[in-house]
Amino acid sequence: MAEYPTALGASTRDTITLLGHDLARDVMGEVGFGELAFWLATQRRPSKGETRVFEAVLAALADHGFTPTAITARLTYLSAPDSVQGALAAGLLGGGSRFLGVTEDCGRFLHARLDGRQLPADDDGWDAIALEVVAAQREAKRFIPGLGHHVHKDGDPRTPRLFQIAHEENLEGPHLKLFAAIGRVHPRVLGKTLPLNGAGVCGAALADLGLPMELLRGFALLARTAGLIGHLAEELRNPVANEIFLSVDLNNVSVPPGGTHG
Amino acid sequence: MAEYPTALGASTRDTITLLGHDLARDVMGEVGFGELAFWLATQRRPSKGETRVFEAVLAALADHGFTPTAITARLTYLSAPDSVQGALAAGLLGGGSRFLGVTEDCGRFLHARLDGRQLPADDDGWDAIALEVVAAQREAKRFIPGLGHHVHKDGDPRTPRLFQIAHEENLEGPHLKLFAAIGRVHPRVLGKTLPLNGAGVCGAALADLGLPMELLRGFALLARTAGLIGHLAEELRNPVANEIFLSVDLNNVSVPPGGTHG
Amino acid sequence: MAEYPTALGASTRDTITLLGHDLARDVMGEVGFGELAFWLATQRRPSKGETRVFEAVLAALADHGFTPTAITARLTYLSAPDSVQGALAAGLLGGGSRFLGVTEDCGRFLHARLDGRQLPADDDGWDAIALEVVAAQREAKRFIPGLGHHVHKDGDPRTPRLFQIAHEENLEGPHLKLFAAIGRVHPRVLGKTLPLNGAGVCGAALADLGLPMELLRGFALLARTAGLIGHLAEELRNPVANEIFLSVDLNNVSVPPGGTHG
Amino acid sequence: MAEYPTALGASTRDTITLLGHDLARDVMGEVGFGELAFWLATQRRPSKGETRVFEAVLAALADHGFTPTAITARLTYLSAPDSVQGALAAGLLGGGSRFLGVTEDCGRFLHARLDGRQLPADDDGWDAIALEVVAAQREAKRFIPGLGHHVHKDGDPRTPRLFQIAHEENLEGPHLKLFAAIGRVHPRVLGKTLPLNGAGVCGAALADLGLPMELLRGFALLARTAGLIGHLAEELRNPVANEIFLSVDLNNVSVPPGGTHG
Repeated sequence: MAEYPTALGASTRDTITLLGHDLARDVMGEVGFGELAFWLATQRRPSKGETRVFEAVLAALADHGFTPTAITARLTYLSAPDSVQGALAAGLLGGGSRFLGVTEDCGRFLHARLDGRQLPADDDGWDAIALEVVAAQREAKRFIPGLGHHVHKDGDPRTPRLFQIAHEENLEGPHLKLFAAIGRVHPRVLGKTLPLNGAGVCGAALADLGLPMELLRGFALLARTAGLIGHLAEELRNPVANEIFLSVDLNNVSVPPGGTHG
Repeated sequence: MAEYPTALGASTRDTITLLGHDLARDVMGEVGFGELAFWLATQRRPSKGETRVFEAVLAALADHGFTPTAITARLTYLSAPDSVQGALAAGLLGGGSRFLGVTEDCGRFLHARLDGRQLPADDDGWDAIALEVVAAQREAKRFIPGLGHHVHKDGDPRTPRLFQIAHEENLEGPHLKLFAAIGRVHPRVLGKTLPLNGAGVCGAALADLGLPMELLRGFALLARTAGLIGHLAEELRNPVANEIFLSVDLNNVSVPPGGTHG
Repeated sequence: MAEYPTALGASTRDTITLLGHDLARDVMGEVGFGELAFWLATQRRPSKGETRVFEAVLAALADHGFTPTAITARLTYLSAPDSVQGALAAGLLGGGSRFLGVTEDCGRFLHARLDGRQLPADDDGWDAIALEVVAAQREAKRFIPGLGHHVHKDGDPRTPRLFQIAHEENLEGPHLKLFAAIGRVHPRVLGKTLPLNGAGVCGAALADLGLPMELLRGFALLARTAGLIGHLAEELRNPVANEIFLSVDLNNVSVPPGGTHG
Repeated sequence: MAEYPTALGASTRDTITLLGHDLARDVMGEVGFGELAFWLATQRRPSKGETRVFEAVLAALADHGFTPTAITARLTYLSAPDSVQGALAAGLLGGGSRFLGVTEDCGRFLHARLDGRQLPADDDGWDAIALEVVAAQREAKRFIPGLGHHVHKDGDPRTPRLFQIAHEENLEGPHLKLFAAIGRVHPRVLGKTLPLNGAGVCGAALADLGLPMELLRGFALLARTAGLIGHLAEELRNPVANEIFLSVDLNNVSVPPGGTHG
């Protein structure tokens, strides 16, 4: 007979444990939600500093107003108000490569560049690696994930703040250091200055926290779940989804089939 | 031209705000994730005590081991490892009436019973209301949401703990008080003693925190998102999804079509 | 050891069967897709007439232009173009009580009214039942599912057509007959004439085909899956999702938190 | 004001059109569901032969018994029976790279190999291209999508049947021809004989039908939607989801956190 091991939730008639601890006594009322999410993902309890950096990342990614994911969640709630789970799930499904993917892409990109490399002792050493990395991307005609922002052209305010928090908590690891160095050196290679964006710095920070690379996008989605609940709550107070729907539907133009092919 | 108001995320070239505050300066590094989720849902910042109760609820609901939602998330990740958002969304879609619905059902049930009623001053008063409520349900041959548990027959350990935390924070409101009274008086009406379950007490606590009734299930889903990330992380470390799949597929029995109809 | 019976797909090293038939020889190239979908749902092969009515229903429900489900699928594809399954799933999640639910609601409503009743022999008999049904709904201050349309106020062109097709195929069963009678008699009770809408007549026709009541919505979703693929294909040729997104995002208005509560 | 063109569904007070045709008169009762799905995706009406090949592909992909997607749909229906759309969506979310991706991967692979190439006049010419393609994949240490099957080691019965149907309809295009040639020549390069699998030949056939490459997976998902409805209908008749859930949950083994990392 197959057996299925897990270190997460378990219960008997009298007890409930989570991660090997008594849920009621040791977790409820004792462990914050960000701390718990980190613990569930890594199966090790984070320090206060790690929790602060992690929660700062979640705050940075929780909501950006009327993104496609927020519009989608609101429209789905309009169509199927009986299914809150469907509205949240539909919103999360937009969390793919384009709109929420930068966090994961940047974390993985930095991780791959650091793999097997001797870590330098000072900023000059990091700059040397960063120059090599930026030049290689340029050579390959590829963008550097996390570099550039279509709105915050002079700098994304989340970036220096997250560096500062990581610094305060003594948690600036190699991913953040390489990302900072890319920010310093890229103008020398690319001939223009681009901002390090907030989604990217979040990916670097999550990677430095030792979270699994394969799930970096998952933390952006966790943050976004809170944001989407905010949108549904606002939709209850002050609905706009029907107006969004009508703004599209009433401006539809019927065209003959078989037109331009992309 | 239509306009779409929101108090959530907003940005200009130089600034990003969330809930009217400077995201980088005032939210990142300052606001915990549970606190932020509460704030996003209600558009008012919770007190420390409210945050503690709220996070205790999220901890209580985060994971219960191999639930259908956890199995579903793992199987979907097995099938489509390129889409973490799909695995999380699939898991959340099980958060409907049966497995995650008790929290919402219990909160709404208590809320409807309290609606328009003068609140009593002492436990005797609460017991009187509870007796009336339990008798009415029995009369209508309906269950009381939150009463009874198929495993924790002698008591769900989360229930007294959440009452205790709410009490410590001076946040035992009318929903929790009515729920407690139902726990005290129901044996007199039903002729047997059932436990107040953890999902139910969570619904009562969320209702007392003033969270929107329509979205109580949403908070269970937020908690579960963290739990599902835990399952995906564990699946990466110690995979079982393929074995689960094979345990079903290899034990399939091909039967002729058109058999018994439910 | 548990065993899991199924009459659907099965395979051995050399054979693949579906519904007890050799898939390659007897199904591929022999069975149309609408016919197969009916067969899968009922485990009995439909007649040609049943298939024609069923496919007429699917055609009626496949697409209605820029519905919330279509907008949602397009926005999700914009955000996560790597996950076609996510875009389709997100679109289907809008198929709940409001926008795709009428088909199911109408089928179930008629079914419940017919339950246990002696079926009449002629239109006068049907009219008598319909009068009773309409009066009871009016008494209960409830709408009749399938009656009325916000656009096709003088008649939904799908309705007479589906009645005609069912008549041609000799498949006008009790659900369609009661629905037709409701169309004839309701003005006497309600004092105004409302059209029988297309979603409603589809529900009546699906119920007459003997499809499971619990899954009537599922057939609307199957039809819509084809429609959503049409939208994604059109989005590839002639994209509008980014423009929809910007039409909302650029017209956002940042308001202070905590405003009007619904 | 933005305008949103579409050739799909449109309606006025008196008319409903789909793809430029009167829906009620010209589509309902006249166009089969497979034919309509093709038409919606390409905006051109398929011939009878194209419809037959297309529907044969959909039949081949509709259901394979207790796949992860079927198990997921059943478990989600168990958890949230109020939301059929959620159960179908959850099932579809498993339609990613591993379990339903071969169809798309194979179609795209063949398409890329044909791109810009002069098409040969006879089988010898196709064999020459196939040898080159197989050798290049072997060189790059990559699998050929659609080659090999873990169960049907001596041949997938769907493959010769789909070639036969395409041949009967005079629709064996370059993708099918190259795929057939790969089947003939690969033993010379790989030193062993592998079957051309059914998912792969479906991808080749869909590509030959001129369907959009980006959406090949979408047709597998459309077919699977019908299969998943079959599973939900069977779950209603003869439920197994709770037993599947218990077979996992009751065989869970609680282990200490932080064990082996993948």
